[in-house]
Amino acid sequence: MSTQTLPKKPSEVWQQIRGGSWRGVTSGVAPGYVQANLAILPQDLAFEFLLFCQRNPKPCPVLEVIEAGNVEPVLTAAGADIRTDIPGYRIYENGVMVDEVESLVPHWRDDLVSFLMGCSFSFETAMIEAGIPLRHQELGRNVAMYITNIPTVPSGRFSGPMVVSMRPIKREQIVRAVQVTSRFPATHGAPVHIGDPAAIGIKDISRPDFGDAVDIYPGEEPVFWACGVTPQAVALNCKPSLMMTHTPGMMFITSQRDADYAVL
Amino acid sequence: MSTQTLPKKPSEVWQQIRGGSWRGVTSGVAPGYVQANLAILPQDLAFEFLLFCQRNPKPCPVLEVIEAGNVEPVLTAAGADIRTDIPGYRIYENGVMVDEVESLVPHWRDDLVSFLMGCSFSFETAMIEAGIPLRHQELGRNVAMYITNIPTVPSGRFSGPMVVSMRPIKREQIVRAVQVTSRFPATHGAPVHIGDPAAIGIKDISRPDFGDAVDIYPGEEPVFWACGVTPQAVALNCKPSLMMTHTPGMMFITSQRDADYAVL
Repeated sequence: MSTQTLPKKPSEVWQQIRGGSWRGVTSGVAPGYVQANLAILPQDLAFEFLLFCQRNPKPCPVLEVIEAGNVEPVLTAAGADIRTDIPGYRIYENGVMVDEVESLVPHWRDDLVSFLMGCSFSFETAMIEAGIPLRHQELGRNVAMYITNIPTVPSGRFSGPMVVSMRPIKREQIVRAVQVTSRFPATHGAPVHIGDPAAIGIKDISRPDFGDAVDIYPGEEPVFWACGVTPQAVALNCKPSLMMTHTPGMMFITSQRDADYAVL
Repeated sequence: MSTQTLPKKPSEVWQQIRGGSWRGVTSGVAPGYVQANLAILPQDLAFEFLLFCQRNPKPCPVLEVIEAGNVEPVLTAAGADIRTDIPGYRIYENGVMVDEVESLVPHWRDDLVSFLMGCSFSFETAMIEAGIPLRHQELGRNVAMYITNIPTVPSGRFSGPMVVSMRPIKREQIVRAVQVTSRFPATHGAPVHIGDPAAIGIKDISRPDFGDAVDIYPGEEPVFWACGVTPQAVALNCKPSLMMTHTPGMMFITSQRDADYAVL
């Protein structure tokens, strides 16, 4: 599919996905609009999970919670249906993926609570606008992600290590990268670590736990940001009877602009 | 009591209150440490209330949630006991205040969840350090608070208008006041309104709904910030079977520094 035909407006994206006329990874789709990670859990885990997010805002920046019995993200994407408007979904039972589907309608239950959380696409746009190149984008790869030894703050049944994404940054651009991403606390915000991967428990930077490896060139340092995979990893850790998520790379597109979430 | 004998460290404050050797309003106590509003609700309202706070972060900036069965704020005030370490508490049943007490120990239940929320003392310190005078402090009064027509975003049984605090600011200092308070999103953050009180539904600026009136001098504008009274007002609105709070002006003192919560 050429870039010309990529949907430009969130409502177009939802309709095309819902109608089956477009499906794919959402990187570059509806540029300027905030994309979100999705985690759906039964109501009896909702308080513990929301509290987990409150205690770990860098990996788990909540954009909206859709309460049990509802499927429309009225605050961030009025008119959308969380069950149909993402290109792909994964279904987990007791912590194991049991299905990958294009619609959650046949799987929906009235006790399900949906959590939409910020993703790094927002701050990546800001970094590129600030003249900071992103190697994984240049190479057309997924960002490299690692399980660290940085503990999250537990909440009830939810606990586990933080997952981070890594981007190699030229030393003279690291300060600017911190400043630019600090403006987006709703989409992971400032880095959690700069430099030595071993200091946060990463043994081999060339072997990410998720996504694709990229080289780090002389004059660059690896810079690490809290990653939206964390809440999914932590949630699966406690083996909930049912959990549903977006398929990696296929995010939910909100009708909020990146700029709506910038501070200062 | 002279200022010399005001406790300086949070742990001293907790011990003196718990032991009955000191009680009073907490303005000026343990300078530099974050003070918090307290709302305690039964577990069955906890998810809805936490979600209300997530949806309304300016009036309801959650610092910590103490889960049912626990009384120690382990994240923001390890060693403290939320039932005994505040100088005064109020008890509400079905939305009506039924008692004002010095300890919650006789009233405690294992299904109670405690919410600690940021208060404006943190950003007031920052404003004074930035050379912005605060009239209510100069006059030794409580800040003026008003019920507005700004709606909060509802969550379950919780809804109602935002309550704001007002500080008169010289026109040439308003931009600086916005900048300084923007650095403290965990303690209400930037103003919600500048100027004309009628625009946010305040009919008579000389008659606050809570606290004490102050004059607005020529060359000044009233500047309005989201206020920590909002969550209490909204919670009482839904007439919970039981709700417990701090007594106004008698805040919980955390062991976190104001600077810990400053962004950028």
